[in-house]
Amino acid sequence: LDEGLVCHVGFAVDSQPFVLPTAYARIGEYLYVHGSPMARWLSLLRQALPVCATVSILDGFVLARSAFRHSVNYRSVVALGHFAEVEGEEKLAALRAIIEHIMPGRWGDAIRHPSDGELQATVVLKISLHEASAKIRSGPPADLEPDLKDRARKVWAGHLPLVLSPLAPVPDPALQQDIPAPDYLIEYGKR
Amino acid sequence: LDEGLVCHVGFAVDSQPFVLPTAYARIGEYLYVHGSPMARWLSLLRQALPVCATVSILDGFVLARSAFRHSVNYRSVVALGHFAEVEGEEKLAALRAIIEHIMPGRWGDAIRHPSDGELQATVVLKISLHEASAKIRSGPPADLEPDLKDRARKVWAGHLPLVLSPLAPVPDPALQQDIPAPDYLIEYGKR
Repeated sequence: LDEGLVCHVGFAVDSQPFVLPTAYARIGEYLYVHGSPMARWLSLLRQALPVCATVSILDGFVLARSAFRHSVNYRSVVALGHFAEVEGEEKLAALRAIIEHIMPGRWGDAIRHPSDGELQATVVLKISLHEASAKIRSGPPADLEPDLKDRARKVWAGHLPLVLSPLAPVPDPALQQDIPAPDYLIEYGKR
Repeated sequence: LDEGLVCHVGFAVDSQPFVLPTAYARIGEYLYVHGSPMARWLSLLRQALPVCATVSILDGFVLARSAFRHSVNYRSVVALGHFAEVEGEEKLAALRAIIEHIMPGRWGDAIRHPSDGELQATVVLKISLHEASAKIRSGPPADLEPDLKDRARKVWAGHLPLVLSPLAPVPDPALQQDIPAPDYLIEYGKR
């Protein structure tokens, strides 16, 4: 949950499921999401509907000798429960955590922290991680014995690791000329 | 849909939603997923439950002058409907498309294509993209006018593009020494 960046939140309305991607952060045993009170999905989730919050990380492709054994390496967490709205100190801590989760160091930079009006225009919800399960697949392919022994079939097998990498930061066209990219931005992804 | 790699499929059982990540491919106006007939979620989806299939790509972080205007750049597709099982030629074409979607060139390499038994041990489902919507956010932050004009607050603003990049391929420990990594693998991600 600390390495992932996008949470896919599932909920159902009149038995039609919806799955929406959103930013998030974990604090202790809770996962926090946020958004506008105008957003329909947040209005629904405020009502404590049963939900599923899933975070998955694609770690790579698994290239086997047989088509059947091709796979992906991944890590995923699936949390079931319902969201509850948070306020006050916990709300501000969650917003800080969501920004710091995306870009460690950003909250402590000179960004303007939320005004009272902005806090009112933001809904922050949390879900307990009490009912959650994790899955992981890693490493090489698991080919069948006959495929391993078939030395006539010359095909490369193994896995290709994937990582989400930053390209060069793109300054806002309105950025003042004398403001350099901060260290935490330049160092992002080199951890 | 052709650039994404993971589909998050949502469905509900007794009003409890579940969201599971899976590989997929698009052919024409359909999105295909596959898996084992032993998997509970595939057994459920075979029954044509209402589902939501969401594919999202995280394109970058948006670093604004105010905490409130921080965001992410992304592209997402949300398709509603139900899955239907496919067989025969269409099933094989879908399996081929799923492997080629992950690693273009792989199906035409010397991998062993599915046997009849393996085809029977695989369920392939498709969902129409008829009822689907796409969302996108790109580019620089959208700061408020007072924040743009506040030249005393020296904070970098802009966006950080992110891409999923391959690391070096990792050969299977059981790989024959004389089989080199194929060109399509070495070239992966350089497109």
